[in-house]
Amino acid sequence: MTSTPEAGPPRRVAIVGTGLIGCSIGLAAARAGLEVAGYDADEGAATGAARAGLTVAGSLEAALEGSELVVVATPIEAVCDVVVAALGRAPAAVVTDVASVKSSIVRAVAARGAPLDRFVPGHPMGGSERSGPEHASASLVDGIAWALAPTPATAPASRALVEAFVRALGARPVELDPERHDRLVAVVSHLPQVASTALMDLAAAEEADEPELLVLAAGGFRDLTRLAASSPGLWSAILLANREEVARAIDRYVEGLVRLRDDVARGDAARVEATFASAKAARLGLAAKPQVRAGVAVVQVPIPDRPGALAQLTGGLAERGVNIEDLQIVHSPEGGSGLVQVIVAATAGDAALEALLERGFDPVRLA
Amino acid sequence: MTSTPEAGPPRRVAIVGTGLIGCSIGLAAARAGLEVAGYDADEGAATGAARAGLTVAGSLEAALEGSELVVVATPIEAVCDVVVAALGRAPAAVVTDVASVKSSIVRAVAARGAPLDRFVPGHPMGGSERSGPEHASASLVDGIAWALAPTPATAPASRALVEAFVRALGARPVELDPERHDRLVAVVSHLPQVASTALMDLAAAEEADEPELLVLAAGGFRDLTRLAASSPGLWSAILLANREEVARAIDRYVEGLVRLRDDVARGDAARVEATFASAKAARLGLAAKPQVRAGVAVVQVPIPDRPGALAQLTGGLAERGVNIEDLQIVHSPEGGSGLVQVIVAATAGDAALEALLERGFDPVRLA
Repeated sequence: MTSTPEAGPPRRVAIVGTGLIGCSIGLAAARAGLEVAGYDADEGAATGAARAGLTVAGSLEAALEGSELVVVATPIEAVCDVVVAALGRAPAAVVTDVASVKSSIVRAVAARGAPLDRFVPGHPMGGSERSGPEHASASLVDGIAWALAPTPATAPASRALVEAFVRALGARPVELDPERHDRLVAVVSHLPQVASTALMDLAAAEEADEPELLVLAAGGFRDLTRLAASSPGLWSAILLANREEVARAIDRYVEGLVRLRDDVARGDAARVEATFASAKAARLGLAAKPQVRAGVAVVQVPIPDRPGALAQLTGGLAERGVNIEDLQIVHSPEGGSGLVQVIVAATAGDAALEALLERGFDPVRLA
Repeated sequence: MTSTPEAGPPRRVAIVGTGLIGCSIGLAAARAGLEVAGYDADEGAATGAARAGLTVAGSLEAALEGSELVVVATPIEAVCDVVVAALGRAPAAVVTDVASVKSSIVRAVAARGAPLDRFVPGHPMGGSERSGPEHASASLVDGIAWALAPTPATAPASRALVEAFVRALGARPVELDPERHDRLVAVVSHLPQVASTALMDLAAAEEADEPELLVLAAGGFRDLTRLAASSPGLWSAILLANREEVARAIDRYVEGLVRLRDDVARGDAARVEATFASAKAARLGLAAKPQVRAGVAVVQVPIPDRPGALAQLTGGLAERGVNIEDLQIVHSPEGGSGLVQVIVAATAGDAALEALLERGFDPVRLA
């Protein structure tokens, strides 16, 4: 039971729910050479996904027909119903979902008497503050961690199929049980959302009395509040579905804030500095973790602050046919150049390095 | 007393303290055609600044000699002493500082009996989680808000000189009294630092028990914790110098977090969603505020996800001699392209638009 059979990815995949995440997964599956059929009950989402390049079926039945894997990417409130329906209507297929919470979904699906052996709860740890298929991109899943949280009843063959699917898409499967998943994402995903929203909300309230407040907001404030632009309905549903763990994470966060507040108010420089020093060490450790971006290569390049510098860099990569997945000017968040990080597919890392060296740059591969 | 005489920028400027901020200001002043002399008591900082292209004097006296403006950019603990010294040793010069806190510095300088008429407390609202002259860049000050917090005793001519200096550097002066400055930056600058540090610290503590925690950290967590990599000593000193306002900002933040926590724990979807919706509206309003980026033009361009797309974009700008100050791929923080925001000097905005249209792009000027 514990051995994982070797398996290839499914040949045909149905994507039910073609919003930002579903459509991106579908595009990544098509990019990987798999046959894909999307379906969305919402006509706008279906049309948007078709416009984004996804093959969209006219009905749920047509999407499920012949699919070995069904990816349920609906809003979280609908996930249980759609998983149960897919397990029933596609009796040979494995079903996975992408919801940000796992225990409550597993409990709900089990309570409906659905066959758990073919259900592999999943959660790709990527996304964006945007939503909708018009912002979808295959590269959304490149190199991301993709949590798989099988139930004790999930069959090893089902697990292996979804694992192979995740790898085929260029993401990295991380297996952990549903309860542990919910505990960890409460800290690294749900709490950041809450922290960002609460900060933006406070600033908006203070701005009512102090109209110049946001004029003073620089890059740091913007970084911290980017997530606050996320979909309110989506996040309300996620937080409520993981309420115990989210409440516990906020409690611990508040404890830390109050401790730091008291140290500041008391003027205890040594303790404040120690807290900042340990956070700094942890953050630098995070930046250096290459496994967080497995599947991609990160190349860092110093560039001069003058017209044409970036053009030379990107031109050199284009000449070699290297697609730039992401590009960040890292040193001065409020403008200017200095150091540029170029992110390309891992398979293109060497070509990127060579192309940049040829053009006279001094690239360093970070991951 | 309230009229502001017309004034040009100073011809010669001394920069005392040539770390990240001081060196960047010096480079921006030189770029604006001003004569600049830097000085740092720390030999490493002085050497680093010289290497970054700043003219560095051998002594404080040599730097002050003939300077109409002295910019004090030392660590906050030394600001009062250096301001008092500069006011005394350069009896014809106006003195400004760049510390993140203003009231306590004004009180300390006044208590030393220094001539406040020539002192214009300042605070450029830019920076980076990095430090040291090796990360300095003139473009760090491009388009940023630069708070000026004159005391009641500051002479209008002194204020006008510093205002002209700030404008000459490409930044945007925002005048407000020292107490109000400290209240506002506690919310938009000091609190984000605390929120980021506390989040990273919590995650690091939890990771001790859950080694997979940070493997699951995606773009949102990274955004929120970037500031946590800032200098512990610098930030400890800043927070303690503004302790009452920082404590008050943390208190209000904690109130908001606890309210949201209780709404989540109680399962009150309507209230959670309402909080997220108001934060989202405020964040979108922030992104749309053109005055936040005065001095720069922001041009948004859809680009296809294929090799060479960015090269065409940057190549078109290079052909016209347009320097790219910053570039962000905005849609998918975890990789991929889609929409690109290009930030250029405001004066280059039209040329950038034309260049992109010529190359067949569909640019929109956001600000």
